[in-house]
Amino acid sequence: MASSFGRMLRVTTWGESHGAGVGVVVDGCPPRLPLDPAEVQRELDRRRPGQSRITTQRREADQVEILSGVVDGRTLGTPIAMMVRNADARSKDYGEMARAYRPSHADYTYDAKYGIRAVAGGGRASARETIGRVAAGAVARRVLRELVGAELELLAWVEAVADISAELDPARDHDRLTLAAVEANPVRCPDQATAERMYARIDAARKDGDSLGGVVCALARGVPPGLGEPVFDKLDADLAKAMLSLPAAKGFEVGSGFAGTRMTGTDHNDPFYPGEDGRIRTRSNHSGGIQGGISNGEDIVLRVAFKPTATILRPQETVDVDGNPTTLSPRGRHDPCVLPRAVPIVEAMMALVLADHLLRQRGQCG
Amino acid sequence: MASSFGRMLRVTTWGESHGAGVGVVVDGCPPRLPLDPAEVQRELDRRRPGQSRITTQRREADQVEILSGVVDGRTLGTPIAMMVRNADARSKDYGEMARAYRPSHADYTYDAKYGIRAVAGGGRASARETIGRVAAGAVARRVLRELVGAELELLAWVEAVADISAELDPARDHDRLTLAAVEANPVRCPDQATAERMYARIDAARKDGDSLGGVVCALARGVPPGLGEPVFDKLDADLAKAMLSLPAAKGFEVGSGFAGTRMTGTDHNDPFYPGEDGRIRTRSNHSGGIQGGISNGEDIVLRVAFKPTATILRPQETVDVDGNPTTLSPRGRHDPCVLPRAVPIVEAMMALVLADHLLRQRGQCG
Amino acid sequence: MASSFGRMLRVTTWGESHGAGVGVVVDGCPPRLPLDPAEVQRELDRRRPGQSRITTQRREADQVEILSGVVDGRTLGTPIAMMVRNADARSKDYGEMARAYRPSHADYTYDAKYGIRAVAGGGRASARETIGRVAAGAVARRVLRELVGAELELLAWVEAVADISAELDPARDHDRLTLAAVEANPVRCPDQATAERMYARIDAARKDGDSLGGVVCALARGVPPGLGEPVFDKLDADLAKAMLSLPAAKGFEVGSGFAGTRMTGTDHNDPFYPGEDGRIRTRSNHSGGIQGGISNGEDIVLRVAFKPTATILRPQETVDVDGNPTTLSPRGRHDPCVLPRAVPIVEAMMALVLADHLLRQRGQCG
Amino acid sequence: MASSFGRMLRVTTWGESHGAGVGVVVDGCPPRLPLDPAEVQRELDRRRPGQSRITTQRREADQVEILSGVVDGRTLGTPIAMMVRNADARSKDYGEMARAYRPSHADYTYDAKYGIRAVAGGGRASARETIGRVAAGAVARRVLRELVGAELELLAWVEAVADISAELDPARDHDRLTLAAVEANPVRCPDQATAERMYARIDAARKDGDSLGGVVCALARGVPPGLGEPVFDKLDADLAKAMLSLPAAKGFEVGSGFAGTRMTGTDHNDPFYPGEDGRIRTRSNHSGGIQGGISNGEDIVLRVAFKPTATILRPQETVDVDGNPTTLSPRGRHDPCVLPRAVPIVEAMMALVLADHLLRQRGQCG
Repeated sequence: MASSFGRMLRVTTWGESHGAGVGVVVDGCPPRLPLDPAEVQRELDRRRPGQSRITTQRREADQVEILSGVVDGRTLGTPIAMMVRNADARSKDYGEMARAYRPSHADYTYDAKYGIRAVAGGGRASARETIGRVAAGAVARRVLRELVGAELELLAWVEAVADISAELDPARDHDRLTLAAVEANPVRCPDQATAERMYARIDAARKDGDSLGGVVCALARGVPPGLGEPVFDKLDADLAKAMLSLPAAKGFEVGSGFAGTRMTGTDHNDPFYPGEDGRIRTRSNHSGGIQGGISNGEDIVLRVAFKPTATILRPQETVDVDGNPTTLSPRGRHDPCVLPRAVPIVEAMMALVLADHLLRQRGQCG
Repeated sequence: MASSFGRMLRVTTWGESHGAGVGVVVDGCPPRLPLDPAEVQRELDRRRPGQSRITTQRREADQVEILSGVVDGRTLGTPIAMMVRNADARSKDYGEMARAYRPSHADYTYDAKYGIRAVAGGGRASARETIGRVAAGAVARRVLRELVGAELELLAWVEAVADISAELDPARDHDRLTLAAVEANPVRCPDQATAERMYARIDAARKDGDSLGGVVCALARGVPPGLGEPVFDKLDADLAKAMLSLPAAKGFEVGSGFAGTRMTGTDHNDPFYPGEDGRIRTRSNHSGGIQGGISNGEDIVLRVAFKPTATILRPQETVDVDGNPTTLSPRGRHDPCVLPRAVPIVEAMMALVLADHLLRQRGQCG
Repeated sequence: MASSFGRMLRVTTWGESHGAGVGVVVDGCPPRLPLDPAEVQRELDRRRPGQSRITTQRREADQVEILSGVVDGRTLGTPIAMMVRNADARSKDYGEMARAYRPSHADYTYDAKYGIRAVAGGGRASARETIGRVAAGAVARRVLRELVGAELELLAWVEAVADISAELDPARDHDRLTLAAVEANPVRCPDQATAERMYARIDAARKDGDSLGGVVCALARGVPPGLGEPVFDKLDADLAKAMLSLPAAKGFEVGSGFAGTRMTGTDHNDPFYPGEDGRIRTRSNHSGGIQGGISNGEDIVLRVAFKPTATILRPQETVDVDGNPTTLSPRGRHDPCVLPRAVPIVEAMMALVLADHLLRQRGQCG
Repeated sequence: MASSFGRMLRVTTWGESHGAGVGVVVDGCPPRLPLDPAEVQRELDRRRPGQSRITTQRREADQVEILSGVVDGRTLGTPIAMMVRNADARSKDYGEMARAYRPSHADYTYDAKYGIRAVAGGGRASARETIGRVAAGAVARRVLRELVGAELELLAWVEAVADISAELDPARDHDRLTLAAVEANPVRCPDQATAERMYARIDAARKDGDSLGGVVCALARGVPPGLGEPVFDKLDADLAKAMLSLPAAKGFEVGSGFAGTRMTGTDHNDPFYPGEDGRIRTRSNHSGGIQGGISNGEDIVLRVAFKPTATILRPQETVDVDGNPTTLSPRGRHDPCVLPRAVPIVEAMMALVLADHLLRQRGQCG
């Protein structure tokens, strides 16, 4: 089940970059929830290529078709199948790649694993696969909204591009961290001044045929306490898997992350106090909203590291499919930096993990 | 299945800190493999409490009993059940904890989730649960050794304690990174000079009633190319989940990790070249041995961030089970720094992920 | 995962009777297998409506589209998505059914479960769902053919319609039990004389607005010994689940089945003897090719009981959606007897179970 | 996961006939349920050997130890591990069996699958494995009692031994079908006169060194409508798998079963009518309480066919482990008829399936 994720809310994606299309089946969705194709399309539009000069110029409308599981705008409780047809599939761009392995792509490892691969556009390893995740994430958001309420808010943004970091603290900059602020610029960094510097840097890398990496920070507000399970299916463990399953992801942190390893226990522990509404709160949030693998009601805060895009438009040393040394000068369209488009994908994966654990919790504990 | 992990090689752990014992069932192990209880015990001895002044003084022999699945020293292919009885369970130490939630422990979240918890020793949230993982990891090591061979080597070590870091590069310090070097000191840092500084710092924290965090680095050499699956069950995604499921883990990196986000694609990409033995190799290893979620035959390199132990012997602000503010002064035995004992646990989780994917690969691709 | 089946070869079906279409995703298929859309279509054509006067007159070409997972006629190892668009969806026929629950259909239980249902054509409970199973079954057949060989043969046929039974013994009538004989008449009973009597009886029921049930017998020849697992995932247990998951199935037998309960152990036991080719054989086959849940190399023989179709064109006592008594006179197209079209579906499910266990066996035992 | 069953309430059994013991881990049990070891022991005592002259004379107290997951008589929500030590393990009785395959046992197929087997007592294929199922079933019963109520009643009994059948109709003989009536005789047939005939027949077979089969009928009253899922995880499909996973099971029926295949749709359909309490009821129950794979609130009725015990004390033709012909004269203790002891096991499996689906339904549909 390489292509399935989740236990109670279970998604299965399919499709290659240059095949008929890409899609997803979402099984286990609660029945009778309102689901408007427009809310799925809205999320897909956020990850769509061609949104600005700094994203790939592949032209795809990415129009979703809901094939099953919804009647008269309500979920049936049975599988929701969704599909996006591929349109702008220029397989001819990929002739050279059929012969040589692109460095730090999945070309070689797919061949090592399967002895066969869909060459064009990276096939199954293409970021187009994430269309299914984002469509499913829109369903998961709806599950969370209906079962928890509007107070549950998910938000991701670009925190860093290369060495340019936004000065934003999830704990303190509550008002600046809004969907509107994130969507206000093509970089999706809610600190507008920093966003401009990031944009310029990415655009320069693009012109240079090079690529950049960075960090996405994500936040879940209003998550009820009690989600996540002891031992293996800890909420943060499932979030880590969700994030590391994204193309180009190389790292994951929850709460204090790697920086927290340099603190003492005295400083790191989050003291409890009685909140105004009777809820138990913590004074700090080094835990990132998760303790012992279970949500404690504080904001869930996580970070995902994305490497610089492997596709660069420069000659590179590599080997061909017969193992002989060669030089590859890739063409084709690509993102010089995946970060801006990664934002809605990170949100989608967060939504899927939370909705799945919400249903699991309701099943076991009522 | 909060307490199960893996698909083909599947482990299920059970047990609480102060119950009858802790254990594990390993299902799906290939038949006819030699399995000596001594090799399981050897790994358990590495994670056993009381190994030095800087680990918890709880006295447990942690003697494993193999209850099923092995006859005459050979695996049967049927479930291998293993158990360790709890011995030194001083429940009286935990009276105060029944009343108040220890900060940054799982006390509150377990109550929020289940409405009940095993108070003594943290119950199911205790690190004693990892005994089952380590015992299962010994089986997984055996699977790897028999199916791949002795060239597959797993090694973890303490890379950092607080702000003290060892100068060890997995790519260059091949000869210094050996099991003997790791086991040569109680900190499990193979850089002996740094280990001494770490030891002193941990011991100082212990005397101070405080605690420290740090980073474990882990390495898998000789992993065949082709392990891991596209999309959700990427090898690094499953490793990330495995590591974040460990108590006190707050972050995970593979290959270049967060540092890699500040590189350009030109510098980050790992050029391919033809190796001496006909294998395809990479000149650098920013990928950490995994590309597109699938092993490429280079060393797998990962890092896990562990926060400072939540148990500290100092008065702390908290709330009681009724939500009233109170002060807690924990007693009981604890590790002032989990890092030294985390080393064999990280290795065990790595072994479980690799063995599981090895069997999956053999099943699908032959 | 109501809509998923299998562990290593995993299928997920989706779609309602009168939605956009029905489909399936097959994950875990070995790579590099030849897969021709025509071989999928051939199986779909066998289950297609309108094959004769005794099957439903719904007009559907049931043309399959392979959306992913296959390039240049070879499987990639990644998910194979397949879809059939619904064409002849006369939702207007179903107005009355929106108001009243059809007896012995799933109308009431879907409402009881979900509080909502897709009324037209029975929605998800329609036998159109089995299109996905048959398409996936064609993939599974290919897996078996490539990994085991042509000697592995699957065959199902109609053994009984109402009280008319064919005199065919899987053990003795080897030569009469061929695909050609099964396909030689619209009933799919390879005993042609009996088939004519069955046909007449079904046609009479059809004219009468009534329906009939019967028994499908199925056979797998050439299954290698060792497939199936001890305890819960016994080969016959998984076959039983596969068959009882079919619409209208009410019973399952393997080998001697219910009749075997009246034998003594002395008569029932299958004596072993050395076969000519060095294989261990049994003199009788009351076990039906499976002992202790694991195949023994003899023919696997099973039977599935199908009730008379619930749709009958006669007034019936029922209640409406408000719980008030009413009379329902269903219209719409239906099969007066599901048996002929059940034959390829039973074969498909058998193929899925065997292929899944073949991959599991290869994964664990090599 | 050969040895695991269920999705939300998940059981994993382990152990061989003559190893250290047998056991089970139950994961996913709701928290805070009362659970008394005595209620587990009571069910184990019903399946214990040596209850009468017609069951195996192996002497086992089968005393259960609850190792985890329960504190102060309440479930914690974490895994419940339970174990029974093997006591009377006479491995010397099994010397001959190490050399020759017992006909219709799992000896040969285990060797074919694994290339190794635990000879003594049939190893993992022994009916002692069902101890874990019965212990887990007691937990599942508790789940049903607490979440549904005492009106949910499970009852199984021996309906037939060889050709001796009890005249008991689940629909009409409500008052005669009680636990007390079932437990009133060692055969567990609530028709006492028939039970005596069955007893005599079994005892005669025992003296004769032969064995008998039969049919267990089982009933679940008070199951709420809505349990079970469309498509693959139909309630009856999961029950079929549960039952066929039992040693010696060869057939399964729900509701009208095979007999129903000879009825017309007009006679077989179950008309709906408004019940006295506002519930929707059916006038007949050919559906056996399940329609479209989902419970409809009527009694769930199923039957399981068990073959005559494969162990008989007579010389039998077989082959040795080298494939040479030989004659085997088994010794050792055995049940001349598994039916009486199968009754609590069938109940346990029914409880596990229902409890699992109850939690799944609560998770998805609230």
